[in-house]
Amino acid sequence: MITQTVFDTSRVFTAHGITHVVLSPGSRNAPLTLSFARNEACNIYNIVDERSAAFIALGMAQRLNKPVVLCCTSGTALLNYAPAVAEARYQQIPLVVISADRPPEWQEQRDGQTIDQLGALDNFIKKSFNLPVDTSHQDAAWEYNRKLNEAINTCQQGPAGPVHINIPFREPFYPGEQQINFSEQVRTFKQHAFTQAPDWSELLEKYEQYDRPLLVIGQQRSNQELERDLPGLAEHLVPVADVISNVLFDGAIRHQDLFLTGMDPKLQESLRPDLLITCGKSVISKSLKTYLRTNPPKAHWHIDPDGVAPDTFQHLTDVIRTNVEHFTHALANYQPPGPEFNLQVRSNFIQNWKIENDKLQRRMEQVLATATFCEFTAFDRVIASLPANIDLHLANSMPVRFANFIQQLPEGVEVYANRGTSGIDGTNGTAVGNALVADKTTLLLTGDLSFFYDRNAFFHPYSLEGLKIIVFNNGGGGIFRLIPGPKNLPERPQHFETAHQHSAKFTALEYGFDYHSAKDYESLDKALNALHKDDKTPKLLEIFLDGSASEKAYADLRQEINDR
Amino acid sequence: MITQTVFDTSRVFTAHGITHVVLSPGSRNAPLTLSFARNEACNIYNIVDERSAAFIALGMAQRLNKPVVLCCTSGTALLNYAPAVAEARYQQIPLVVISADRPPEWQEQRDGQTIDQLGALDNFIKKSFNLPVDTSHQDAAWEYNRKLNEAINTCQQGPAGPVHINIPFREPFYPGEQQINFSEQVRTFKQHAFTQAPDWSELLEKYEQYDRPLLVIGQQRSNQELERDLPGLAEHLVPVADVISNVLFDGAIRHQDLFLTGMDPKLQESLRPDLLITCGKSVISKSLKTYLRTNPPKAHWHIDPDGVAPDTFQHLTDVIRTNVEHFTHALANYQPPGPEFNLQVRSNFIQNWKIENDKLQRRMEQVLATATFCEFTAFDRVIASLPANIDLHLANSMPVRFANFIQQLPEGVEVYANRGTSGIDGTNGTAVGNALVADKTTLLLTGDLSFFYDRNAFFHPYSLEGLKIIVFNNGGGGIFRLIPGPKNLPERPQHFETAHQHSAKFTALEYGFDYHSAKDYESLDKALNALHKDDKTPKLLEIFLDGSASEKAYADLRQEINDR
Repeated sequence: MITQTVFDTSRVFTAHGITHVVLSPGSRNAPLTLSFARNEACNIYNIVDERSAAFIALGMAQRLNKPVVLCCTSGTALLNYAPAVAEARYQQIPLVVISADRPPEWQEQRDGQTIDQLGALDNFIKKSFNLPVDTSHQDAAWEYNRKLNEAINTCQQGPAGPVHINIPFREPFYPGEQQINFSEQVRTFKQHAFTQAPDWSELLEKYEQYDRPLLVIGQQRSNQELERDLPGLAEHLVPVADVISNVLFDGAIRHQDLFLTGMDPKLQESLRPDLLITCGKSVISKSLKTYLRTNPPKAHWHIDPDGVAPDTFQHLTDVIRTNVEHFTHALANYQPPGPEFNLQVRSNFIQNWKIENDKLQRRMEQVLATATFCEFTAFDRVIASLPANIDLHLANSMPVRFANFIQQLPEGVEVYANRGTSGIDGTNGTAVGNALVADKTTLLLTGDLSFFYDRNAFFHPYSLEGLKIIVFNNGGGGIFRLIPGPKNLPERPQHFETAHQHSAKFTALEYGFDYHSAKDYESLDKALNALHKDDKTPKLLEIFLDGSASEKAYADLRQEINDR
Repeated sequence: MITQTVFDTSRVFTAHGITHVVLSPGSRNAPLTLSFARNEACNIYNIVDERSAAFIALGMAQRLNKPVVLCCTSGTALLNYAPAVAEARYQQIPLVVISADRPPEWQEQRDGQTIDQLGALDNFIKKSFNLPVDTSHQDAAWEYNRKLNEAINTCQQGPAGPVHINIPFREPFYPGEQQINFSEQVRTFKQHAFTQAPDWSELLEKYEQYDRPLLVIGQQRSNQELERDLPGLAEHLVPVADVISNVLFDGAIRHQDLFLTGMDPKLQESLRPDLLITCGKSVISKSLKTYLRTNPPKAHWHIDPDGVAPDTFQHLTDVIRTNVEHFTHALANYQPPGPEFNLQVRSNFIQNWKIENDKLQRRMEQVLATATFCEFTAFDRVIASLPANIDLHLANSMPVRFANFIQQLPEGVEVYANRGTSGIDGTNGTAVGNALVADKTTLLLTGDLSFFYDRNAFFHPYSLEGLKIIVFNNGGGGIFRLIPGPKNLPERPQHFETAHQHSAKFTALEYGFDYHSAKDYESLDKALNALHKDDKTPKLLEIFLDGSASEKAYADLRQEINDR
């Protein structure tokens, strides 16, 4: 009889307060599965398709604001985690990826499910930890325990992100005939971070020298402190909010994605900031990026707590390492000094942006009010129907753009979108992960291709009560009809749009979702009523859309906007 | 207006005779999509889910015995290729993976769909090629052209395998308003390989010194030349054939996976080879591996054309770099020399293996004939119903094992299985790829989890005429009921088996497959008739199985075998 003592891995995680674990089935990871399953502090989810499993973990970690554990068997299982791990890296979401592995001596010996796992995710993780296969020597046991702690601390240290722990196991994996024991002797060490309140006077002095400051808020979770300061800030700067910035302040500029194109040089100049301040992660609006790259400010300050500073607008001058709310709080409480501080110039600049924003909003409302049923108007109708206080997941590629055009979300709606890598491969899973840990409605707005891509996100037995999905089904990748390049290519339907006649109905049937469909305003209003009625069962509403009509409506709107 | 000339990439591939291209839609890869789509020599398949797309390409390359091109847009698309790329690496299947990329200057600047693609697949490819973004300088154009040729030659050079070509593009991507031209000036260079006929006398002399040679044939495509030599070889050695070896010779040992366990020491000794010769890739039988590791031969010769020599049985002594048929042809034509060559000992050794093999086969037939309807008997009934001359795809994990127990395939059946990495993540796709390029029936035998895992393999408009699928649905990962470790664990149903009540029916409905189901011998026979009738539409037969009954039947059979 072989006797083996394995480390009770889960204890380290629960000691760190990490309790959500997404497992995928396998033999090699059995010692891990059993450790997590037998630890009562753990909330365990078993998901067969590792790609969906990883996006579900991402959705959970994002919603919970803390690390979630992913654990799979040896072989290609780990590789299926890669898309979600990349998204986690670029969105700075802490994930602890654990792969069980064959022991090192069996690498490349044509044993089953043995691949070169070490470093397989290195492009997308903060650090990779390879644990010892044999912990019978006390130093090896110390290493195993220590590296778990290091991995847990590393994934949370700013910028947060995914880490990979590879754990090789020799047989036996299972208790029973072959003896396997769990050692409960685990040790934890935690990281604590403190920062001192900085002296803002130098920056505020610099700030005084600019007359036309613009604050662009990129993707972030809702930030109460920033929100409180925005009205004050708006007295002397222009705040621009992407829909994924979760900014509620109604004085923020919202329609930059629509009005910042096709402008004459005079208008362009009237909007040009001399100081650009940015915070948060990515911004969706291509118009905004192009405008700021071609109408550069004198200075661009980027605020990031970890000093992560992509030069998105090509004119970065300063990186301010702090939490955005610390900086904006100082700025909001700032008293304009003497007469040399030109409030009039600032006020004109602020007005210029307001005028364009309001004009655009009125135009859009006019056009949408009279437009025939199409993607854009259907999307607008859906947004208008939203209840307050829900979690709203926006899929790539068109839903998040439409939402950014329209904005106008009710209070307490928190917006999520996979804008780290902007993939279509895991939006169902991310929303499912959210629904599994949220205590309120999770609504996903998605296109048909994204929906079908990640349909395995529903392939598990866990209750999806509170999950609602609206699929905008235009029979393919509608974005290729809407962006200028491929629109008129003969290859578009087959090679870009990948046109199809599939319906989400079969998926809804298979998973027992309430299914509703709509094809015009009347049926849409009815279906939306049914969808929003209660949270008792998961619900799916499929809106069938005519790609050509949508294309025309979209073109018309853009035309009107450009007609200034 | 920006004018850009892009290299007409597809021309290099078609000049090398590579004509099958699996594309996934995107904008960044538009210059590649258009180059392939506008090249009439190309057979193009557009598949939305890149994971399935890659397995489809793998199935095609395997069936066609030549490289297939995969091409995707920037971002996580590429990462979804990883599982199939790993399988291709370990099965030595040539795949050319092309990822479009953002230009290098925009890396890590929070632009959409921009991830660190360079080296992302490095653990699983032969070589990574990064192409220049700007080919206006003639040296850069030469580099672009040269690297395409190098990649194509590298993936085919033994051991064959996947390569990765990363191609960054700046806008514009689309012809039209923004001017983009294709340069047709392409140059190709090819690799030609010649080997001299070796002198075998030294090896044959060594061979004479062994009395009990065993030839184990691992995974390979059917090999006519080897097949012709097997009857001659079987005069003085024991040939052992895994079901994935595609050996038809009826004198081969087949049931090693069942009879090489639970033997007393005397029987073990009577079967022990003094010379082990192996060829091909992996073997399925764990019993065979364990037996040979614990009853080692004096010498182990592994034959591989590229000298790839894993030490699977832990006693490797010689690696023979040649095609297996060259060596076995020399051996088959070999004339036993004088009386010192002990044919009697050889003949006893050969008999010992035959006796065990035949005994096992009779026992298995008895047990299966009277057993109640269960996985094993259903599988046996399916195998007995198979028509000749089909392509048979066996999924991991149980189908390929059951097939290896039973063997007995009709003539002309070619067996395929993803035994490079033994994953469950792409068997539908591999079979679909086969069906798309084969001119005969492709039959996939799969379990329910593998089937659901890769259901997106059917999400495309290409005709799957000739594809037939049999899903053995036991409501979860049945393997965890059958292998000893997890069988009696309380965590088994939830954490290992991942029990479910799903049916493949909805998938069949969605994709317009003829759907049949069976739950006993009678309905199975009827359904098999319908399934095998014609190749006009894709067909799916779902066999509903009781996991507990299957578990008992399997235990009974193993019991009888061990009762010697």
